Amino acid sequence: MKYVYLFGSDIAEGNISQSKVLGGKGANLAEMASLGIPVPPGLTISTDVCNLFLKEKKISQKIVIKIEKALNIIEKKMGKKLGDLQNPLLLSVRSGARISMPGMMETVLNIGLTSKTIPALIQKTKNEKFVYDSYRRLIMMYADVVMEKSKQKKNVNIREKLELILDNTKKKENIKNDSDLTVANLKVLITKFKIMIKNNLGEEFPDSCKTQLWGAIEAVFKSWNGKRAVQYRKIENIPNEWGTAVNIQGMVFGNLGKTSGTGVAFTRNPSNGQNDLYGEWLENAQGEDVVAGIRTPNPINEFSKTSQTKKSTTLIESFPKVYKQLIKIKKILEKHYQDMQDIEFTIESNKLWILQTRTAKRTGEAAIKIGVDMHHEKIISETEVISRITTKNLNEIMYTKVDPELEKKYSPIEIGLPASPGGAIGRIVFTAADAEKWHKQKKPVILVRHETSPEDVQGMHVSQGILTAKGGVTSHAALVARGWGKSCIVGCSNLHIDLQRKTVVVNNRTYKQGDWFTLNSSEGYVYDKKLKLVKSNFIANPSFVTLMNMTDKFKKLKVRTNADNAKDALLSKNLGAEGIGLCRTEHMFFDKKRIRSVQKMILSNDKINRKNAIMELLPYQKKDFYQILKTMAPLPVTIRLLDPPLHEFLPSQKNEKLIGTLAQEMGMSAKKIINRIIELFEINPMLGHRGCRLSISFPEITEMQVEAIFMACIKLMKEKKNPNPEIMIPLISTINEFNYQKKIVTKIAQKIEDKYNVKLKYKVGTMIELPRACLTADAIAEKADFFSFGTNDLTQTTFGFSRDDVGSFIQTYFDNNILTEDPFKTLDVNGVGLLIKQAVKKGRKVKENLKIGICGEHGGDPRSIGFCHDIGLNYVSCSPFRIPIATLSAAKKCIE
Amino acid sequence: MKYVYLFGSDIAEGNISQSKVLGGKGANLAEMASLGIPVPPGLTISTDVCNLFLKEKKISQKIVIKIEKALNIIEKKMGKKLGDLQNPLLLSVRSGARISMPGMMETVLNIGLTSKTIPALIQKTKNEKFVYDSYRRLIMMYADVVMEKSKQKKNVNIREKLELILDNTKKKENIKNDSDLTVANLKVLITKFKIMIKNNLGEEFPDSCKTQLWGAIEAVFKSWNGKRAVQYRKIENIPNEWGTAVNIQGMVFGNLGKTSGTGVAFTRNPSNGQNDLYGEWLENAQGEDVVAGIRTPNPINEFSKTSQTKKSTTLIESFPKVYKQLIKIKKILEKHYQDMQDIEFTIESNKLWILQTRTAKRTGEAAIKIGVDMHHEKIISETEVISRITTKNLNEIMYTKVDPELEKKYSPIEIGLPASPGGAIGRIVFTAADAEKWHKQKKPVILVRHETSPEDVQGMHVSQGILTAKGGVTSHAALVARGWGKSCIVGCSNLHIDLQRKTVVVNNRTYKQGDWFTLNSSEGYVYDKKLKLVKSNFIANPSFVTLMNMTDKFKKLKVRTNADNAKDALLSKNLGAEGIGLCRTEHMFFDKKRIRSVQKMILSNDKINRKNAIMELLPYQKKDFYQILKTMAPLPVTIRLLDPPLHEFLPSQKNEKLIGTLAQEMGMSAKKIINRIIELFEINPMLGHRGCRLSISFPEITEMQVEAIFMACIKLMKEKKNPNPEIMIPLISTINEFNYQKKIVTKIAQKIEDKYNVKLKYKVGTMIELPRACLTADAIAEKADFFSFGTNDLTQTTFGFSRDDVGSFIQTYFDNNILTEDPFKTLDVNGVGLLIKQAVKKGRKVKENLKIGICGEHGGDPRSIGFCHDIGLNYVSCSPFRIPIATLSAAKKCIE
Repeated sequence: MKYVYLFGSDIAEGNISQSKVLGGKGANLAEMASLGIPVPPGLTISTDVCNLFLKEKKISQKIVIKIEKALNIIEKKMGKKLGDLQNPLLLSVRSGARISMPGMMETVLNIGLTSKTIPALIQKTKNEKFVYDSYRRLIMMYADVVMEKSKQKKNVNIREKLELILDNTKKKENIKNDSDLTVANLKVLITKFKIMIKNNLGEEFPDSCKTQLWGAIEAVFKSWNGKRAVQYRKIENIPNEWGTAVNIQGMVFGNLGKTSGTGVAFTRNPSNGQNDLYGEWLENAQGEDVVAGIRTPNPINEFSKTSQTKKSTTLIESFPKVYKQLIKIKKILEKHYQDMQDIEFTIESNKLWILQTRTAKRTGEAAIKIGVDMHHEKIISETEVISRITTKNLNEIMYTKVDPELEKKYSPIEIGLPASPGGAIGRIVFTAADAEKWHKQKKPVILVRHETSPEDVQGMHVSQGILTAKGGVTSHAALVARGWGKSCIVGCSNLHIDLQRKTVVVNNRTYKQGDWFTLNSSEGYVYDKKLKLVKSNFIANPSFVTLMNMTDKFKKLKVRTNADNAKDALLSKNLGAEGIGLCRTEHMFFDKKRIRSVQKMILSNDKINRKNAIMELLPYQKKDFYQILKTMAPLPVTIRLLDPPLHEFLPSQKNEKLIGTLAQEMGMSAKKIINRIIELFEINPMLGHRGCRLSISFPEITEMQVEAIFMACIKLMKEKKNPNPEIMIPLISTINEFNYQKKIVTKIAQKIEDKYNVKLKYKVGTMIELPRACLTADAIAEKADFFSFGTNDLTQTTFGFSRDDVGSFIQTYFDNNILTEDPFKTLDVNGVGLLIKQAVKKGRKVKENLKIGICGEHGGDPRSIGFCHDIGLNYVSCSPFRIPIATLSAAKKCIE
Repeated sequence: MKYVYLFGSDIAEGNISQSKVLGGKGANLAEMASLGIPVPPGLTISTDVCNLFLKEKKISQKIVIKIEKALNIIEKKMGKKLGDLQNPLLLSVRSGARISMPGMMETVLNIGLTSKTIPALIQKTKNEKFVYDSYRRLIMMYADVVMEKSKQKKNVNIREKLELILDNTKKKENIKNDSDLTVANLKVLITKFKIMIKNNLGEEFPDSCKTQLWGAIEAVFKSWNGKRAVQYRKIENIPNEWGTAVNIQGMVFGNLGKTSGTGVAFTRNPSNGQNDLYGEWLENAQGEDVVAGIRTPNPINEFSKTSQTKKSTTLIESFPKVYKQLIKIKKILEKHYQDMQDIEFTIESNKLWILQTRTAKRTGEAAIKIGVDMHHEKIISETEVISRITTKNLNEIMYTKVDPELEKKYSPIEIGLPASPGGAIGRIVFTAADAEKWHKQKKPVILVRHETSPEDVQGMHVSQGILTAKGGVTSHAALVARGWGKSCIVGCSNLHIDLQRKTVVVNNRTYKQGDWFTLNSSEGYVYDKKLKLVKSNFIANPSFVTLMNMTDKFKKLKVRTNADNAKDALLSKNLGAEGIGLCRTEHMFFDKKRIRSVQKMILSNDKINRKNAIMELLPYQKKDFYQILKTMAPLPVTIRLLDPPLHEFLPSQKNEKLIGTLAQEMGMSAKKIINRIIELFEINPMLGHRGCRLSISFPEITEMQVEAIFMACIKLMKEKKNPNPEIMIPLISTINEFNYQKKIVTKIAQKIEDKYNVKLKYKVGTMIELPRACLTADAIAEKADFFSFGTNDLTQTTFGFSRDDVGSFIQTYFDNNILTEDPFKTLDVNGVGLLIKQAVKKGRKVKENLKIGICGEHGGDPRSIGFCHDIGLNYVSCSPFRIPIATLSAAKKCIE
């Protein structure tokens, strides 16, 4: 068994596929070495040794010999020797597990400094301060990691004690930065450190290179079972038996004068994806100096300059050869790793060393550009582009967001559910009416409500953002906001609104109407400040467009949109919608010109008056449908017949003013109107008189809506357009409801076909949104032309969770791991999904090619889309701004 | 093919099994004849002849000859001859289909009277008035049935015209009853009749016996296709091709003087089931005289005497031999038909003739007694008793009801859903508080509410009956009332309550507080009168007890009860409950001593105060459980942990007075209380923060309840009792909720076991009442000891119907045949049932012997119980007064 692997300029005993044995870092160093990239030579002790050590509490002699043999080879390569009195080698000892566990395990640097090697190194480097500073660092690290932690001496906390000495010295000498300590200061410190260590840990700091080395190796192994590491593994589900490797590497120094330096570089611009090196460097400095921000680093090239570093010296200017070498390495690494890299480098006396490479983090914009570019550069395939770009990347580019730099400086006053991503800034108001009023005065507003209702829609529309105390991610506010791509945060349970005083109390602070709030609704953060927004124009982004075209080649699921007006329909079409999967008709009823007719209809006592009131809506509805069908033709438009309970169209019982107006306009007593409002009140409206139940009580509603749809079709057909309506009956629980409604549709169609002597093209299908519809899908499929799963309602009834009320307990559910996902966000595959699967199976058994889609909010959720693909649905439908995400998710499923 | 069947004293060519060919009446007459019972001889023309006639529009010569031949035999048996001038025979011609179609087809009596036979019959009977009256009847019937209807002469309406002549004659002669017409009157009438017939129908009334006979036969055949008959068949789903038979029978006369008479008799008392003939008779009278009530009939024996007929002459006294013969016939008939009979008889010159026998209608009380008695008399088996006694019979004996005689006289002012059977009389009040107030003043009240809530429980309890405008049969009012066996009608959508004025408007009539109402809640009838109630003491009824014991031998399903106090538990045990299937704990919280602690708990801001408030309830709960467990021990008691949303325990936001009191008592501001009420308000409470969700937010509730249960057990164990608690976690949608709660139960149990050094015996199971619980029943079964289906909630979520709001549209659903059953009353086997079946299958796959029951309202519904039996449940649980019904239904399923 091979326990020790060498790597370095011309040797690489391991490679990237061996991360199981070498750990991630070790494998990567070997990989770079094998690519001929200058890596400081070193060796990796395998994870097997870690497991043996943890079992046997010691490293066997056989392995010790192997390590020492390997070390000899490194010494030869470096031309330095551990403990040598001419040219002493210093070593770093680092952990490296199969999966990166950042900061969870230990590292010891500068190993090899002793009373004997210090003068030799001073002699060699001509830099006494550097050597003593390194020694100070070694002592602090070693005492903490090796002498205290690894030996499990509790409650000594040597690190803290040494830091205290350091701080006291700095105070006494009036020194601000560690790097300003003089050689004299350092020498005193080192003496004090050693005494403190002896007194507290009961032993001397070791003055032997070998003792230092073996102590460090064992400490790294032991740190695999350190408290932090064990906790981290538990959370991340990393098996205890993996173990960590140990990487021992010769140290190189960028602080040996003007011919040395250090820097970090991204192989492309991580912010916008531009294909140029991007990074910073420092002359005569060590790596940590760049990271620590003690000195302002220089840009490595022109592309990396900022307004502050416009005049700084670039790496190209100072080290043109090294820069060229870096460019070469960039290409090798990108080609090899097939991705943008984030590298650390050191120049020691004009020689370039690469200390680390890793896949670079990047913004959504960069991710998309880099993915698409790398495909054009023939580095990666189209499927790789699709699988690599995440829906999060898309989200980032699509929405206006709070300036992330500014946001870092403040803490949110409340964290709610991120209901519709983006950012918004405005003055808070507490009623839809105030929102409208302030909007007219050109004041940007954030509408803060307990919860929203259809009455609030106009006020919501003019607001920059919406914030509610109640509700989940499919509550009314969330649904409406998402449809508009408007910023919205819901379920902020700490908001206590006082409507009379027009104030809101959040965690004991009171805010009044007009105060500035900023919402980061991608994360759910609420700020009581006026921050800044960063805008987006993603539709014009060519990489985005290329990406979207790419996905179309792969995906099988069609992607439709939820849109209920021509504007949204057009937007959706531009975003790639292949039809409308859900055109809600209730929003059309709230228009000011129409609401009176709707109210008259509801308040009518008899069928004739009701019918008359409803027919007043016909011309409006006809126009609605005409425009939407025209925009989408010949793509299909699924129109859902009226769904919400009637009381939503009447004012609140307490709204005396509006009731007064209504009474006057309609020539009725206010009391009668109030009585009707009370009569229509329902204890559980979600399970009440709505959906097809409405039209069974009042068939005139369906008659009017269907007539409007078909009259719009007649007009479009005359204009040689090809309208494609799919009429959808909502909330079916038994086939009899469907038949009853379908009969009305057919009757009206027949009437119009006869009158105009044409053949109308249309489908009649149903929303499957109740468990009973799923259970009896075979019977329904016999009569329905299509199914569309309304997964919001289906989730509500399957779980027995009201989407409007779930906010009061769902957080406790997450806290206790009772739920790990919000089932209104990501489809509950194990429960609701089973019902859906049954329904698909039953439906297709009766009608093999039954068209089946999904139009609930889950239609825009990546994981739920995966499920829809797996069970063979024909399409998903989602709000306009979710279309790119749905499209990408659907394509991803096909290349898995 | 045999078209004509003879029957009579010593001949019976058919029998009861031939009703397909002979019709019910014909088969029965033949059957009686074959038993040697004196039946006036006659013949039955088969239904095949009817079909042939309706096809060919005539009776073939071959069949005519067969009929005439058969008639000759009858004439010989009667010693009379049709058209004979010495001893003329009169005939009746009656229809008779396979299934009785009462009044839908035609009958002609007294056939054979002509100008020639009339003098002969007068000579023979010495009763001129009888003969002319019979002739008058023949003319009226014949003109209508044969001459007009069967020939389809429209708009003549000869019957009405003849009735008018009769009326005018009576007026002119100042005569009240038809029977008071003199011979002279009759003769004039007959002449007028004949002229009217000739003028209107264009032909003479036939003076030939044969013409009369064949006309009547054809008219009966044709009446099969009469409008009324066709409509009736459509409603009752009777096939058109069945056809009717025709029965021709010699007429016998009970009005031939003192040696003659007529009567009707039940073979047992139809009111209480007493095993004695029960009936009435008239001397020298015809059958219709008894039925028409022109003369007051006499009792046939002592048992049949009423207060009015105490001194009347009985049949035993006047005709002792005939009476003996009747007793003999009763025994023959009951033994033969194995059931109580309802017979008509005529005595013609001391000779007894039985004209008809049929299964007698009876009350519930009679049905039960007769069933049980007949088994003791070895007439029927136990299985026959069980299959014959209906759940309706049980319902009838169990509940106090509105006096049916009195009820007949009035029309209900409104018909609602019969939510809890029985009857109630009281003065109407509109609030629970008023109900309590009036009750204290010893005034009986009917509580009239829009809908009820747990706040109303005390007021409901003191009311005679409950009447609500909203809600379905599983609404709060219905559930609570049924639990108490209290009269309740819900869903009266025409009730408009004005709480301020304390009035209710029903169909434009206004009733004020204090007005008398009577409820027949078995039917859903509301009267605005003070009627009378008839009481019941069914538990002491020995036949009822015998019946219940009988069912226990057969039924496989166990029957448990829904009870939440010791009183109900005891009642249930007396009614045969084999355990408690649902002990709701929320009602226990409403007690006046406790409600403050509950409210404190809800209003607490922090965990410690909440815990303290909850623990105040511990002694009360412990006592509750102690008493219930003690009453039932060692039978199992399924205790459901707290289920309803917390806001139910706080007063309404508008109840300023109560909020004021509460604020004072608890030292809080009223505003804070109101705020908390608003905060707890839910848009869809049924899908909100309730069930196990409560206890996940506030685990202290479960801790307290479970501690109370186990402490009660400890006390009982010390008393050598054997408590058997089954702890039920409500409203589980995922297994994680269950595990979380079960862990608490186990923890508390362990604590108490350790403290008292005992082993507690208990089970932890769950209510399966959400679709998702059904869908994931396999996972739940791995951890749960039992399942109990909560079919009320399951029906709500599967259909998406709120039981509290369904009232607004369900009637339209029934009207349009969209639903034929209320799914809250009878389990929806095709939808909800599928989910239940899946859950049972999944659960038992994991745990083969998993105990599964049902505790929703369907547990008391006969058809739903059948379903529970079929899918192999272990038990059903229902409200106390449904136990006998459930028991009987369960037994019926086993003998099917």
